[in-house]
Amino acid sequence: MTDQTFLDKLKTGWNEGKFVCVGLDNADLQFNKTIVDQTFDLVVAYKPNIAFYEAAGANGLQALKETIDYIKEKSPDVPVILDAKRGDIGNTNEAYTKAIFDNLQADAVTVHPYLGKESLEPFLKRVDKGIFVLLRTSNPGAGEFQDLEVESTKEPLYQVVAEHVAKDWNTNGNCGLVVGATYPEELKKVREIVGDMPILVPGIGAQGGDLKAVLENGLDSNNQGLIISLSRSIIFAPDPREATLKIHQEIVDFLKP
Amino acid sequence: MTDQTFLDKLKTGWNEGKFVCVGLDNADLQFNKTIVDQTFDLVVAYKPNIAFYEAAGANGLQALKETIDYIKEKSPDVPVILDAKRGDIGNTNEAYTKAIFDNLQADAVTVHPYLGKESLEPFLKRVDKGIFVLLRTSNPGAGEFQDLEVESTKEPLYQVVAEHVAKDWNTNGNCGLVVGATYPEELKKVREIVGDMPILVPGIGAQGGDLKAVLENGLDSNNQGLIISLSRSIIFAPDPREATLKIHQEIVDFLKP
Repeated sequence: MTDQTFLDKLKTGWNEGKFVCVGLDNADLQFNKTIVDQTFDLVVAYKPNIAFYEAAGANGLQALKETIDYIKEKSPDVPVILDAKRGDIGNTNEAYTKAIFDNLQADAVTVHPYLGKESLEPFLKRVDKGIFVLLRTSNPGAGEFQDLEVESTKEPLYQVVAEHVAKDWNTNGNCGLVVGATYPEELKKVREIVGDMPILVPGIGAQGGDLKAVLENGLDSNNQGLIISLSRSIIFAPDPREATLKIHQEIVDFLKP
Repeated sequence: MTDQTFLDKLKTGWNEGKFVCVGLDNADLQFNKTIVDQTFDLVVAYKPNIAFYEAAGANGLQALKETIDYIKEKSPDVPVILDAKRGDIGNTNEAYTKAIFDNLQADAVTVHPYLGKESLEPFLKRVDKGIFVLLRTSNPGAGEFQDLEVESTKEPLYQVVAEHVAKDWNTNGNCGLVVGATYPEELKKVREIVGDMPILVPGIGAQGGDLKAVLENGLDSNNQGLIISLSRSIIFAPDPREATLKIHQEIVDFLKP
């Protein structure tokens, strides 16, 4: 383990030209170890989604803990984003931060914005961690509320959330955003709003998002700022390293001057 | 265990004049058993918040499972609402339903609306369960997004969510809503929108909500429809039964013709 913050670790990866994040969505420690062994030198982060571990009961959660421990042992510079999509009132969020940051030792977490900044303070005050707020999710029905136009500014809700996070929530510099690869136009708009904040982009691969559109619309002013997350299309590929390398190389090629 | 649906169990409780729900927010099985022993004949539901169990690690989640098992053994007609505030994309929500409904055997769950109906189908298709959608939460900063006026109807977001749930999401008759006791005016508005749907009302007790205002604004057309949830002010009371009985009796007195 290192004393780097989550953002330090991200920047280390970006400076080495790494943007791919592997979604470890399978509650099998040995399986995950194999994926990590094959990919740790290529990725900017790992992103286990806790739902798949919870579905496997106590053994699943033990596998999650040991998977995170293994990543930290194998490759301490690669941060772990726990995709948990949490969000409760303040004293309950204190309990979630204990579970996610202190017990599981995740470097970052995804959260729902619906209860507002005040509820999320237990997350936001953890200056060394990363707090990724859901803005525009990758699912087909994401627009039901996220696209609702808000009266005061005539903007869709996801843009209003983006503004709140960028202008008011990010005082510790530890916030990020989640925008699905399936919505590149929305990604472009979010990048305009949030400047150089990190954006986690799921939805390439099994969900059909387009890598080139993500890069064209999502890179920050340093040609960095993106965490491009793939799960099923890497971990269940015949050769996970090959699948990761393919995406990695496409990004390297895109960024060539 | 019985073959009753979640809604059947709720109605059984309401028909017996029970409206109090005890929030079992402490990951200690023996502690919870004592609370259940002291309150099971007075309550319409129990509501453990999973965050407090997650914070206690593997033992905590085992305590949650055994607490739910104990409630079902001691008092099979009293349903368990797992306060988990989940909400992810569809295939991930399948994993959450497995964890919450199949493994833990909860009768109902709380969910975030932000990803829309399409994402929540794995929950909504469980006709025998209860799906409580967050509308207006009890925390002080709840209004940051929930009160944003939406351009098309000039209504605040929480009312738009209420309309979607009542008119479009509830085709299986298994939806409920969450409205904090700390916002009685908003509760009144939600009741007008959703008709006789069940409303889970946290926020009385430690959070300062007023019981009389909740009853005046939240009861349905049958003088039922409310699940009034108290956590800290009951489970940490010197005499939890006495604390439950006091609220129960205030409700009985309010409802006297």
